[in-house]
This record gives sequence, C-alpha cells and structure tokens, in this order.
Amino acid sequence: MEKILNIGIVGCGGMGSGHAIALQSGTGNALWKVKTDDVPKFPGALTTDISKHLRLRGIFDIKPERRQWAQERKIPVYESYDAMLADPDIDAVLVATPNHLHKEQSIAAMRAGKHVLCEKPVMITSEDLEEVMQVSRETGRVFYPRQNREWDEDYLIIKKIYDDKLVGNVFNIKSRLTGSRGIPGDWRGIKEYGGGMMLDWGVHLIDRILQMIPEKVIKLFCSCTYITNKECEDGFQLHMTFESGLTVDIEVGTCHFISEPMWCIYGDRGSAVIHNFQLDGKMIRLTSWEDKDAEPIAAGAGLTKTMAPRSVGESVEERPLPRFDFDRNTLYRNFAEVCMGTAKQIVTQEHALRVLRLMEACFRSNESGEAVLFEG
Amino acid sequence: MEKILNIGIVGCGGMGSGHAIALQSGTGNALWKVKTDDVPKFPGALTTDISKHLRLRGIFDIKPERRQWAQERKIPVYESYDAMLADPDIDAVLVATPNHLHKEQSIAAMRAGKHVLCEKPVMITSEDLEEVMQVSRETGRVFYPRQNREWDEDYLIIKKIYDDKLVGNVFNIKSRLTGSRGIPGDWRGIKEYGGGMMLDWGVHLIDRILQMIPEKVIKLFCSCTYITNKECEDGFQLHMTFESGLTVDIEVGTCHFISEPMWCIYGDRGSAVIHNFQLDGKMIRLTSWEDKDAEPIAAGAGLTKTMAPRSVGESVEERPLPRFDFDRNTLYRNFAEVCMGTAKQIVTQEHALRVLRLMEACFRSNESGEAVLFEG
Repeated sequence: MEKILNIGIVGCGGMGSGHAIALQSGTGNALWKVKTDDVPKFPGALTTDISKHLRLRGIFDIKPERRQWAQERKIPVYESYDAMLADPDIDAVLVATPNHLHKEQSIAAMRAGKHVLCEKPVMITSEDLEEVMQVSRETGRVFYPRQNREWDEDYLIIKKIYDDKLVGNVFNIKSRLTGSRGIPGDWRGIKEYGGGMMLDWGVHLIDRILQMIPEKVIKLFCSCTYITNKECEDGFQLHMTFESGLTVDIEVGTCHFISEPMWCIYGDRGSAVIHNFQLDGKMIRLTSWEDKDAEPIAAGAGLTKTMAPRSVGESVEERPLPRFDFDRNTLYRNFAEVCMGTAKQIVTQEHALRVLRLMEACFRSNESGEAVLFEG
Repeated sequence: MEKILNIGIVGCGGMGSGHAIALQSGTGNALWKVKTDDVPKFPGALTTDISKHLRLRGIFDIKPERRQWAQERKIPVYESYDAMLADPDIDAVLVATPNHLHKEQSIAAMRAGKHVLCEKPVMITSEDLEEVMQVSRETGRVFYPRQNREWDEDYLIIKKIYDDKLVGNVFNIKSRLTGSRGIPGDWRGIKEYGGGMMLDWGVHLIDRILQMIPEKVIKLFCSCTYITNKECEDGFQLHMTFESGLTVDIEVGTCHFISEPMWCIYGDRGSAVIHNFQLDGKMIRLTSWEDKDAEPIAAGAGLTKTMAPRSVGESVEERPLPRFDFDRNTLYRNFAEVCMGTAKQIVTQEHALRVLRLMEACFRSNESGEAVLFEG
C-alpha cells in the first residue's frame, strides 16, 4: 500500500457523485454541478489537501447515465462492483448506495481485503451494524461511518459554547433542520430501502449531540410525522433527557415553509442562537443577575413584567458567535490515516452503533407513544 | 341590581392594581404607572366601553402601601374583606390575591351573595375548583375564571389561521413565551402559595390551545425546569397529542436570554410564524406542491437538496398575517352580562377545570418522566 489511499466509490447518485467531485478535485468540496477544475477549496488555512491522502481510483453504479457522467469527467468506471473489489489497486471502498445495500456491500469489501468508508446511515439496524463490526474485527479492515456533520461550522460553534461554558451551565439545547419539499422522491421514501428522515438528517443531528455531550441519555420521547409520506416518517420531534438533567430537543421536518432557528443553546448565564446555515445568530450573556426593576411590557391585551426582556448593556451583553478555523476535511483525512495505521478513528463504530440504537429507541417511543428508557 | 355591576377588588398587587386602573378609567387597559385620566383606550371600534358595564366600588388589600395607592387615586378602600362582602352595594368581587387564597375568598364571596371574577389560576388544584363550582351551583352566583388571554391578538391570528385552514390542515403548533428574569421574586416562587410558571403563564398558553382545538388531548409529555428556583418550576416544555394526531408544543421559560418565535403553525399547505408581542411575522402558503428541481444549498461542509427552501413566487407565496378588529374587553363585558343574566359564560368553569386537570397531568408526567394519558 502506498501512502496515498486508492479509493473506489460504489453508488454514484447524489452523495456518491459529490464524493467523486470532492476527491477528484482534491478539495473535499462536493459541488455536483461544477466542472472539477472549478471546484473551489474550502476557506481557512487548516483544511487538509486530501489529494495527499486519497486518490479516486474509479466508480461503479448500476445506472448507465451515472457511468456516463463519470466517463465525461474522466473518472474510471468499473464494469461491476465485483470488478472493483477484484482490483488490487483498490485499497478502500466508499459505499454510497441506497441504505439497504450498505451491509452486503461493506461486508463484501472487507472480505475482499478493502477498507470501507460507509455513508450514513451506516446500517438500517443496530443488529446489522454489529454483524459488520464483527467482520471488521475478523478481517482487520477499517469500517468507518461517514458521519461528517461533526465538522459543520454551526455545530462546532455550539460545541464551543457548550465546552467552554460561554453561556454558563447549559440546561437545554435545540437542534433543528426543516425544509418544505417532503422526503426526496426516490428510495428515500420507501421503508425497505431504509427511507425516512430519521435515517437521513436524523443521523447527523443525533450523532452530533451524542458527540458533544459526554453523558448517558437516560430517557427519550419521540413523535414522528407522516404528512407528505404515509410509509416513512417525513419528520420527527425528539426530546432527550441526559444524566445531569440537561435536555436536548431535535426536530427534523420536510413540510415546514418557515424555519425556526437551527440551534438554540440555553445556559444559566446566557443563551445563543444560530438561525441558519449562513450562521446568522448571536450570543447574549448575563453580566449581572440583578437588574433594575423590570418595566412591564405590552403583552396582548395585558402587560407582563416576568417576560420583559433585559436591556443589552444593563445586565446582559450581546456577543458575536465564536468563530475559528478548522480542518473541513478531517473525516476524509482521518479515514485515510486510520487505514494507514497512523491515527485513531474519530467517528468510531461504537459511536455509530449508539446513534443507531438511539434511533431505534425513537421508533419504539413513536410507536408506543411512551417515553423510553435508553441508557438509564 | 342596577344595570351597571358594582365590583370590589380584593388584592391590589400587580394584577389587582391593573384591574383597578382598567376599571376606574373605563378603558379596560391595565396601565399601572399612568394616571387614571391618561390611560388610553384600546385601538379599534369594537372594544366595549366597560364603564357601561362595570363600576369599581372599592378595593381591599392587607398592605398599607397598597391601600394608600388606592386612596391617592380616589378609589374607595374597605377596612377588611369582610366589610367589602358586607356592603350591599357590592354585586361582584374580583379576586386578585395570591393563588392559595382564591378558594377561601371566592367561596366567602358567593356565600355572601356576590358574583366572582377570579384571577388565574382560579384554583391551585382541580379538587379545589370542583368545591368552588359546587358552591357556585348552590348559591346561584357566577364564578368566572379570568383567563383573558383568549383575546390577545397574537392568539386570535393563530386561531383564525387554524379555523380557516389558511395553511391547510394543521399538524403542529408551537406556543412559547420566554423571559430571562426568573420567577418574580414574591409568592410566585413559593409552592404552597401556588407558585411556579405552570400556574402562571402556563394557564394562559394551555387555556388558549384547549379553546382553539375542538378535540380531546389523548396524551401529553411534560418536563419542567428548575434553573433559577429549586422549589417551583421556572419553565416547562409540554408536548400534547390530540385525537386527530395534531401535536402542540407549549414552552415557558424564565432563563432564556434569547426568545424563539412566540407562535409557529404548520399545515400541509403552508406555515405561519409570529415572533413577538409586536406581531412581527408572516405566512408562507403553497401555491403548487410541484416545484422545479431543487438547487442544492450549502449546508455546513456539505450540500442539501432536501432542505433547500422554496422560492417565494415559484411554488409558494408570502402573505401578511391576517389582522382584524375585535372587542378587547370581551371578558369584562361577558362577566358583567353573565351576572346580569343576559349572556352565556364564554370562559366556563368546566373549561378552567379541564385546564387545571391538564396541568396536573403535566406535573405527573414531569415527576414520573412518562408520557401521560389525559383524555385518551
């Protein structure tokens, strides 16, 4: 094995073609509709040049139009997935097929001696993942969950606020993502293919919360929506209670024509909000709990003193959200280095298993209408 | 009894003094710190001149400074609550004392032949309210819950959107009110006086939802916060599931330095938001489900098509929130007319009982950590 890992992509749809562009351009930036040469690098000095770690060796897809798309971009195309696995030049496979194929294809790759970077949800069930983990142990091959949203800037800002107690002791976090287009109209709306928004954006939003908060999730309550799709949930609301009493609300929706803030974090010394992917938001921090007597504010046909806001400059200060540079290609790089044996796996199999188990608990809660004990 | 109802106020603190000003000025407008002559009328042509229905006969409060406040405003002051009840000129009593006194004082008033307008929470427990309702039946006196937030404009806008299906079939509603000053530092933070935010703003927010949605509440899940007060909840999150599957989330908080939208309403044909008491907000309505293929949007270190917003003018339209005139003094007027026997009671005892029972179910859910069946 040379120092640059040769990787093949199986499944060249939305995600697979994004990876192809990201890897071919060496930027890590998945811009579907741009010519490879025009794909811009991520901003910031810390982002890894992934061309020094990963080389796109080729793709395979069952659809002729996708094979043609790759050929037009001068990406080699394998005749079959078996042919890819039989190629001794291939060190690793990136699995980006519909969810129900991840298991079989990951196992086949590892049995053929290839490492695996597997799109999320890595598996449809925790049982499947346990089988795959067993194969990973048996073969000594890396199985790496591609849960990459731990390196989204919005999340990292909230994580910094949490870690550094910038709003004091945090008691509630809200993480939301909503759109208005329903579930994408392909296999993502079909149950047996692993459809539904829980196994879609749900994975990322849950993944990040479990990564951020080093506590057991004692209990959860989850209710799903089926507004635009009767078979698969097109959204859900999840309320989690952690060991310390901290609560987290996660909400995903696809019939939401107006979006509530993407992140809110509430501590005993302040609050912060991120409204959207453009990172509009702010942080309000307490400078002194004592304040001059509140002036009542007009509230409908009455008044309220209790809910009168504090004045910035009096007992609270407004601060911009913390911003900082980071390596936007951490996951690609870490995968390559783990395969080379030079780094520890950041997104572990055990972590992905915990995320899957939590999602299974969500479905149980939704079906029963009950709060469900998780790690309590 | 003459055509104008003579009313006495017992308890002249925050709410009681507001009522005193509202009634003395004849405006219905509770502006504490303004001279009575300067209290402006509510806007709109439909608001009742309550001076034609209610006359403030006097107040009683145990605190000398409040009696003095009333005297300075030329409001007659009774020597005792008993003296107020003994006055044959008094037709009705407005009970605005701390919550734990409502029961005894309401019963005493009805036994003395007076009608009662009782501040919210009308009672601390549903059992207490059942006793009071029994006395109301025995004495033939009106007992009227002063749950007045059903005539707040923000609520009426959401109710219109719901009633007229302006965003299609509604599947989720959020109703929130948050501040950052903790529970007011008087009896409101003490359990035995009926403190805590559930019996405070919780009453109003729950009241309105139960008034708006003509369905059984099958189940609820509630978790309270105790950030600024260990004895009484300083906030709560409540998730209610109605018979049709519609869900409603109510949130009250007092350690929230940033406020999320006050109202969100989501239907299968649109969404609407009201951000604050100033009624900033909008309505987005679907004009056609079909849309040109979504352009992926930048989402952290990746892209998303699923969550790409629709463009206004393409398949959705932006509309202002519906606005309309209404009688802001409906509750005062209805109380007076019910006492006169000329109208049906709008905020019924049975409705207040349902609100109290629902809040008791919330406390059970919070204590057990379980979802609780309510009317299911």
